[in-house]
Amino acid sequence: MTQAPTLPAYPQGYLSLAKNIGIKDDTLDFTVVYSTARAAAAGVFTQSLFCGAPVIVGREHLADGHLQAVVVNSKNANVATGKQGVDNSREITRLVARELGVAAEDVLPSSTGVIGQQLPIERFRAAMAGLRDQLKPEELGAAAQAIMTTDTRPKARARRVGPAVLAGMAKGSGMIEPNMATMLSFLFTDAAIPPDTLQPMLRQAVDQSFNMVSVDTDTSTSDTVVIMANGLAGEVDLDAFQTALDEMCIELAKEVARDGEGATKLLEVAVTSARDDQQAKRVAKAIVNSPLMKTAVHGADPNWGRVAMAVGKCEEETDIRPENVTMSFGDTCVYAKGEPLGADLAQLESYLEGTDIRILVDLGLHTGQATVWGCDLTEEYVRINALYTT
Amino acid sequence: MTQAPTLPAYPQGYLSLAKNIGIKDDTLDFTVVYSTARAAAAGVFTQSLFCGAPVIVGREHLADGHLQAVVVNSKNANVATGKQGVDNSREITRLVARELGVAAEDVLPSSTGVIGQQLPIERFRAAMAGLRDQLKPEELGAAAQAIMTTDTRPKARARRVGPAVLAGMAKGSGMIEPNMATMLSFLFTDAAIPPDTLQPMLRQAVDQSFNMVSVDTDTSTSDTVVIMANGLAGEVDLDAFQTALDEMCIELAKEVARDGEGATKLLEVAVTSARDDQQAKRVAKAIVNSPLMKTAVHGADPNWGRVAMAVGKCEEETDIRPENVTMSFGDTCVYAKGEPLGADLAQLESYLEGTDIRILVDLGLHTGQATVWGCDLTEEYVRINALYTT
Repeated sequence: MTQAPTLPAYPQGYLSLAKNIGIKDDTLDFTVVYSTARAAAAGVFTQSLFCGAPVIVGREHLADGHLQAVVVNSKNANVATGKQGVDNSREITRLVARELGVAAEDVLPSSTGVIGQQLPIERFRAAMAGLRDQLKPEELGAAAQAIMTTDTRPKARARRVGPAVLAGMAKGSGMIEPNMATMLSFLFTDAAIPPDTLQPMLRQAVDQSFNMVSVDTDTSTSDTVVIMANGLAGEVDLDAFQTALDEMCIELAKEVARDGEGATKLLEVAVTSARDDQQAKRVAKAIVNSPLMKTAVHGADPNWGRVAMAVGKCEEETDIRPENVTMSFGDTCVYAKGEPLGADLAQLESYLEGTDIRILVDLGLHTGQATVWGCDLTEEYVRINALYTT
Repeated sequence: MTQAPTLPAYPQGYLSLAKNIGIKDDTLDFTVVYSTARAAAAGVFTQSLFCGAPVIVGREHLADGHLQAVVVNSKNANVATGKQGVDNSREITRLVARELGVAAEDVLPSSTGVIGQQLPIERFRAAMAGLRDQLKPEELGAAAQAIMTTDTRPKARARRVGPAVLAGMAKGSGMIEPNMATMLSFLFTDAAIPPDTLQPMLRQAVDQSFNMVSVDTDTSTSDTVVIMANGLAGEVDLDAFQTALDEMCIELAKEVARDGEGATKLLEVAVTSARDDQQAKRVAKAIVNSPLMKTAVHGADPNWGRVAMAVGKCEEETDIRPENVTMSFGDTCVYAKGEPLGADLAQLESYLEGTDIRILVDLGLHTGQATVWGCDLTEEYVRINALYTT
């Protein structure tokens, strides 16, 4: 198993544990993060029509803008599990709340893993004894490990913002095409920020980070990003905090893309001079999600025509015309204003053999822009997902 | 090489040739189909914003509703090739027209293959000598071979409609997500049907066949379906002809899906009880295109939760609710009206080990329905496309 990461700083007042409770195998599959002070909290969730039971319960528990703990399991998503699934999620929050001496409504549940199977609720019940004594400070790295599914490495970050610390973790590797929300990410700070301020700050950060990532166009039923702010470090400069939050979310989002199932490369696609930012995002997503683009990047095949194909399939963007479009790989322009430039394919191939690939498309229309992140499509992605449950 | 297929019947007055002119390797890469009588014609083309040069020229040449020949090459799509590409396509129609003694405007050009490289026009010029003498009747099977790219087998059909014969061929294996049009398909009949009648008949057939197929969500820049009707067999019952056309297009479309790049299985997804047919199609496409669904089918993994995920990601269909949804694999219902049914996973796995997989989703709303076809996602798809040009 990967070593639990050590963070450069920890926010005050957050205790956590990570352990195995035997949901599927003997790896870490259960974590609780607890704040000694009741915290302001904000969250964004999946827009999936088949959202998971924990998302239903989590939305309810976040409604008042406060949380004191999150409880997360991996290996089972508790999705498409009907009424029993929702009952199980509620019971888990009650069990944790009783152990910690907090209100069940201040506990956010989250689950990730296979869809369509009931949680082994008896294992959660058995896991509760002594929970409070197992909580320790500076263990968020292990928590980041416990929320992994097909991730190959934990994703965690921390940075100081004035007197406070912002720490964050994320998981996500497949079923990644967040739309209005994301995979799982939990952020913790000891800054004092009220819920009404925290929610739009989180939304802004998510919109330019997790919502710009795609591994496989498959929107998760469990996407959840939650931030807790317990106030123990006092007030902070909100602009500085927003910058820290934005940058951390982008770093975590890029980590998710780079660790996409089977991925060997991070693919960054920037679209500029679009009609507006939304158009830029749609075109960038079409490129980063194209299986033919992703396989070409994987094979370092200098088949730049596939970028043209991917732009071309945005059929509703009728103001896009080849004669205005310019396409580049890294610093090499391959097509400008309707004409191919006869780029050196050997040089292009050499660029594509790197692990960080950047594709730039200028639509030549107006000032809209967007940057999105994804990864290559590999035989390993197929292997991982052809035999996930069996 | 696969043997050229023999058709059970041939329409009168169509002569063709298929040969290698050395565009990329030594396999068949060039075909001309010529009608001895000028024919009524109809066509539908890709909606790609980066449509190929032959699509631009072909649309012009079809504008008057008549054609006398089609000239098709594989191995190079003549797309994103700027002004030179369009000039090359025009020159090819002029060269063929001169050899055949017809008007250049009655020749439809079509190209399929790599994007972003200029056609080797000198090879086309060299191929023209003696063209007329090389044309032979009953050679449409070889023409179906010559239009192949990554297809593993030619796709051709023929059937009688009263006194006439309808013959059709298609190619397509990757970059398959037709939208308003399709991959390449050419249909030939000796029935007498005027252009104004032929166009809506073709549109109807395409909408329920080629437009319902997806291999990889990547819309081709070259999609073209053209039908020629030279009238040599006289008039036919139009309802019978429409039925024949619909059924032939569906057969060819399913062949395209079954022969999707790297595919080992045909995946049919039927969505019923939708708000309307368009909603049914959107949801069916979301399922048939989901990489996680396609890999599960490939691995015969009874991971039915991925169907729930794929329905769930249709976030704009806000009237879809889990409590109304029913999902089945073949005859096995796995989820009904919001509750999982505890299906026998071993039995489901056994079903998924077949080569023809059918998934049925009932949305429980109204009477809309759609059936779409796709294929599994395999390691071979990645291998084929990671090294396509190199």
